[in-house]
Amino acid sequence: MSAAPQAPTTSRTAADSTRGRWRPAGLNQARITGGFWAPRQQRNGERAIPSGQDQLESAGNLQNLRLAAGIGEGEAIGPVFADSDVYKWLEAVAWEYARHPSDDLLKRQRELTAVVAAAQRDDGYLDSVVQLRYGDEGRYQQLVWSHEHYCAGHLIQAAVAQVRCTGDRGLLDVATKLADHLVASFGEVEDGKIRDVDGHPVIEMALVELYRETGTEAYLDLARWFVEARGHGIIKEHGHEPAYFSDRLPVREQTTVEGHSVRAVYLAAGAADVALETGDTDLLDALKNQFAHMWSTKTYVTGGLGARWEGEAFGDEYELPPDRAYAETCAAIGGIQWAWRMLLATGDAFYADAIERMLYNGFLAGVSLSGAEYFYVNALQLRGSAQPDNGRSPARGRRGWFECACCPPNIMRTFASLDGYLASSSATEIQLHQYAEGEVAAELDNGTVELKVDTEYPWQGAVRVTIQQTTDQPWTLELRIPAWAEGATVDGERVKEGEYARIERTWSAGDTVELQLPLDPRVVGADPRVDAVRDSVAVERGPLVYAVEQIDNTASVDDLHLVPSATISATHRPDLLDGVTVLTARGRAGAGHRDGWPFAPDSTDATGDEVEVTAIPYYAWANREIGAMRVWLPRG
Amino acid sequence: MSAAPQAPTTSRTAADSTRGRWRPAGLNQARITGGFWAPRQQRNGERAIPSGQDQLESAGNLQNLRLAAGIGEGEAIGPVFADSDVYKWLEAVAWEYARHPSDDLLKRQRELTAVVAAAQRDDGYLDSVVQLRYGDEGRYQQLVWSHEHYCAGHLIQAAVAQVRCTGDRGLLDVATKLADHLVASFGEVEDGKIRDVDGHPVIEMALVELYRETGTEAYLDLARWFVEARGHGIIKEHGHEPAYFSDRLPVREQTTVEGHSVRAVYLAAGAADVALETGDTDLLDALKNQFAHMWSTKTYVTGGLGARWEGEAFGDEYELPPDRAYAETCAAIGGIQWAWRMLLATGDAFYADAIERMLYNGFLAGVSLSGAEYFYVNALQLRGSAQPDNGRSPARGRRGWFECACCPPNIMRTFASLDGYLASSSATEIQLHQYAEGEVAAELDNGTVELKVDTEYPWQGAVRVTIQQTTDQPWTLELRIPAWAEGATVDGERVKEGEYARIERTWSAGDTVELQLPLDPRVVGADPRVDAVRDSVAVERGPLVYAVEQIDNTASVDDLHLVPSATISATHRPDLLDGVTVLTARGRAGAGHRDGWPFAPDSTDATGDEVEVTAIPYYAWANREIGAMRVWLPRG
Repeated sequence: MSAAPQAPTTSRTAADSTRGRWRPAGLNQARITGGFWAPRQQRNGERAIPSGQDQLESAGNLQNLRLAAGIGEGEAIGPVFADSDVYKWLEAVAWEYARHPSDDLLKRQRELTAVVAAAQRDDGYLDSVVQLRYGDEGRYQQLVWSHEHYCAGHLIQAAVAQVRCTGDRGLLDVATKLADHLVASFGEVEDGKIRDVDGHPVIEMALVELYRETGTEAYLDLARWFVEARGHGIIKEHGHEPAYFSDRLPVREQTTVEGHSVRAVYLAAGAADVALETGDTDLLDALKNQFAHMWSTKTYVTGGLGARWEGEAFGDEYELPPDRAYAETCAAIGGIQWAWRMLLATGDAFYADAIERMLYNGFLAGVSLSGAEYFYVNALQLRGSAQPDNGRSPARGRRGWFECACCPPNIMRTFASLDGYLASSSATEIQLHQYAEGEVAAELDNGTVELKVDTEYPWQGAVRVTIQQTTDQPWTLELRIPAWAEGATVDGERVKEGEYARIERTWSAGDTVELQLPLDPRVVGADPRVDAVRDSVAVERGPLVYAVEQIDNTASVDDLHLVPSATISATHRPDLLDGVTVLTARGRAGAGHRDGWPFAPDSTDATGDEVEVTAIPYYAWANREIGAMRVWLPRG
Repeated sequence: MSAAPQAPTTSRTAADSTRGRWRPAGLNQARITGGFWAPRQQRNGERAIPSGQDQLESAGNLQNLRLAAGIGEGEAIGPVFADSDVYKWLEAVAWEYARHPSDDLLKRQRELTAVVAAAQRDDGYLDSVVQLRYGDEGRYQQLVWSHEHYCAGHLIQAAVAQVRCTGDRGLLDVATKLADHLVASFGEVEDGKIRDVDGHPVIEMALVELYRETGTEAYLDLARWFVEARGHGIIKEHGHEPAYFSDRLPVREQTTVEGHSVRAVYLAAGAADVALETGDTDLLDALKNQFAHMWSTKTYVTGGLGARWEGEAFGDEYELPPDRAYAETCAAIGGIQWAWRMLLATGDAFYADAIERMLYNGFLAGVSLSGAEYFYVNALQLRGSAQPDNGRSPARGRRGWFECACCPPNIMRTFASLDGYLASSSATEIQLHQYAEGEVAAELDNGTVELKVDTEYPWQGAVRVTIQQTTDQPWTLELRIPAWAEGATVDGERVKEGEYARIERTWSAGDTVELQLPLDPRVVGADPRVDAVRDSVAVERGPLVYAVEQIDNTASVDDLHLVPSATISATHRPDLLDGVTVLTARGRAGAGHRDGWPFAPDSTDATGDEVEVTAIPYYAWANREIGAMRVWLPRG
């Protein structure tokens, strides 16, 4: 029997830049060990990742790669981006290995890596669907739709995760060969290269990450070229509307996000990587403005991104319908990735707050409590009478897989690498961004520091940090105080919300710091320009946005009202939905319904009998039945 | 020089059934001669129809038919349903000829009819795109998407219009040959036929109309078969979601409208035709319920149908977002066609009211004042910051044509045949449904009656009916009193709204009846379940829904509020927008804007300074500039 497999002791995480204000803790440094997230990560490793491989097999994604590798005969199956789902799954396997090394994961990874390597063409090109359907002649003929760079990007990200977390260099060899091929192929026409961009960004982030891993500057240069090439008419020259593809304006001239939401935030995250590594402050400033505009005018209260089904796109300013929210799970993931890069670059707690909101709500709602059923679309309202209209319809409930299966493996890689978003450090500071039961280590200038974090967050507001190991030099513990946490205290002293509380001292092992975040339920309204939720309120507690589901309420949720001024009580229910804090509020049943034509002479809204309103965390909806659900309730 | 061309003296109109409660006035019997509609019809004839032929030429639709006819060589261009736009245009030419006979129209019609006839295959099959792209082997291989029956349906409708209005039988010969081919090809498998339905209905209406014209019962039987075949799994067997195609439930079991809105209302209109001709009261009752449910839960205040861009579809109950309203112009036209058939079958004024609302608002907004620029999508709100995202985006303004050009020729045929919706008759009654300056004649059991209608409706509420010719027997004049017209009078006597006022007497030539409809501006609110317009109001006057446009207002329209209790004044402005009555109300500018994250602790909406609000008829928006527009304003 062989020795138990081990992850390398230096498992660097994603976006691990040495040039930001802060450097993220590696996956062997920050470790979630219990509390809210650990069982979710465990289900991801035990249920989602193995079932994901089965789904990739039955959907044909793996078969495509085998065919391209010359194993068997047949035609490519599924969408042009089929390879990317395999690579995201491989990335998840790598991060999961850092979290929980196992022979099984290594075996799965190595078998599949061998197939991918065999599928690669001699000159480095790799895209199984294009190879099978169009041959060498078909390369880069329709980059606006073909996702060839998109697939390459996900391959590169998986390869970097693999070498960082398992030490295996198999996929990295494929990735560098592919990246070298891209470097040789794309650029300015006068250099004899193809001047084109993929309709779906991700290659930008990936090439920067490969540069970080290998030090090869050509990868960074090409990433920068792809970022700068956007907004100069390339997509339009191909006869397509540029806005959908984030190609209407150059990235550094853009002031908002528009078009396909996943594409937009992936591009922005890649641009942030480029800005970070090249020290391009103008580009970084443009990205700050874009993020701020997105956050103030195009983001759901859940952190969900993308208001439109048509084009899976961002809407106009303040266009945020709760019922037809698209809020694709992948967009929340891309939003987290973008915010993470902005946080490392700027040290602004705003971005860590944004990550928290997206993580606990817009992202987490995308997966079932059981761990392997998913929402592609994350509505903030479902009417009781809703009819499913297609496979992505929330009215169908969460599903095991999708025809366009981008979200499930994206969720898997996010859960598996979640520890990497907890903490970062600089020369004499450690930052805790997200609060989870676990351990954090950092190499400060004067030596190694190790912390232990005990918390039942988000159910309880207490976070205790215990110093496990320290140097004898002073250093600073920085604790994020969320913007919603007015009244937070550190060791009993009020601290300001919306920034990091700094505790600088010479520490001794065994020292503790007690952070207390106030978790009183909060009733929030919307800027009046958010027309779709006029005169309505939502309820939050800590980082969680709440929702009312029909199964918990007697009155019809479709037109339940909430009395905003009434007391809201919180009760933790360990038995319910894997343990949630339930909120109970006072409300009123709907009234003033009109028979027939619904637009009658104006009268102010009537409300009906007083009722109790029960709300659960939004992320937990649709785990018992699929029925009426609302995040926003009219004022009652 | 030849004699001036003349329309046949018996130009029957569309849906001319002898089995309904009422029979529609023919196009030679009901004639709009002035007022609101006449100049619009004139622009349709003089600008839209000729430019439509140019557009069909440059888009390739006409070339496809020439190629199929063996004239020249090349490949089919454009969408699979390209032929249908040609047929709708030919139908418009035919109705227009009845309105205003001309050699030019005859020449255009005959030339094109000859091409269509030459394109038809010997066995009667006809679809130029399928013939060119897939050959005889490709027929009916993908009926769910191929629109072969859809094109056939529009051909048949054009042929019936042609023979009724010009006497030419050229297109009718093609149509009957094609219909005979369909009768021979489609039906039950045990009869050796193809059991399939077109993904896009219209063939049902068309075959019934052809039956009415020719008396051939096989056409009615096949129409009934197509109606009854729906909802029995055919679409699902082809691997598609049935709801989009109105195929989730049998028509007679359906209780609402769902899926693609144009498909849904075309099918319903065809089913109404079948119910009417076969005396199927169960089917008619099902259609009554469906219409009532659509009208009370899935119709915009403008009569617009279809809430969703995704799938161009009806949304769930009460899902009626004003900003992302799809409200396709074709859906309003289909809604009018369905309502017209229901009106003739039932004699219920409810349907004539519905026609009025769709006609003056949801339909009319689809065309510019100049007559040849169109909206495909009819939003009820456009924000000032809106970015166009594709060719159908209202933010682009009205356009001369579309890649999917269903709406423009549909508008043309509707304008040209509008006279046919004015009036109907039974043995001893004449009904006036829509009020327009014009003449109406009817053959009652005891002879011919002729009326003259004088009105400046919808600007003025007075309608004077003068008897021009009458029999010496008593008969009844029935005048629709719209449901909104509380306080209407006939010759000074109050009459009840929402039904027909009946004036029965023995008439003499020169007798007059004075109808007075009250045109005080009305402030309307929505059923509280219409979440998207909570706490908002719209303004109507007569049949017109109003909108505020930025160009008429100093405060930002994006968050302008209206004070519902304040007086609204009406001023007719002959100089503005071809003459409109403008409404002026009291409002408040927006306030309470939030910087940054827009979801902050709840507070009731603040409002800003008092401002004057100017509103114009919704149909007239986007004729001066494209800017912010709203039908619904928050209560101020």
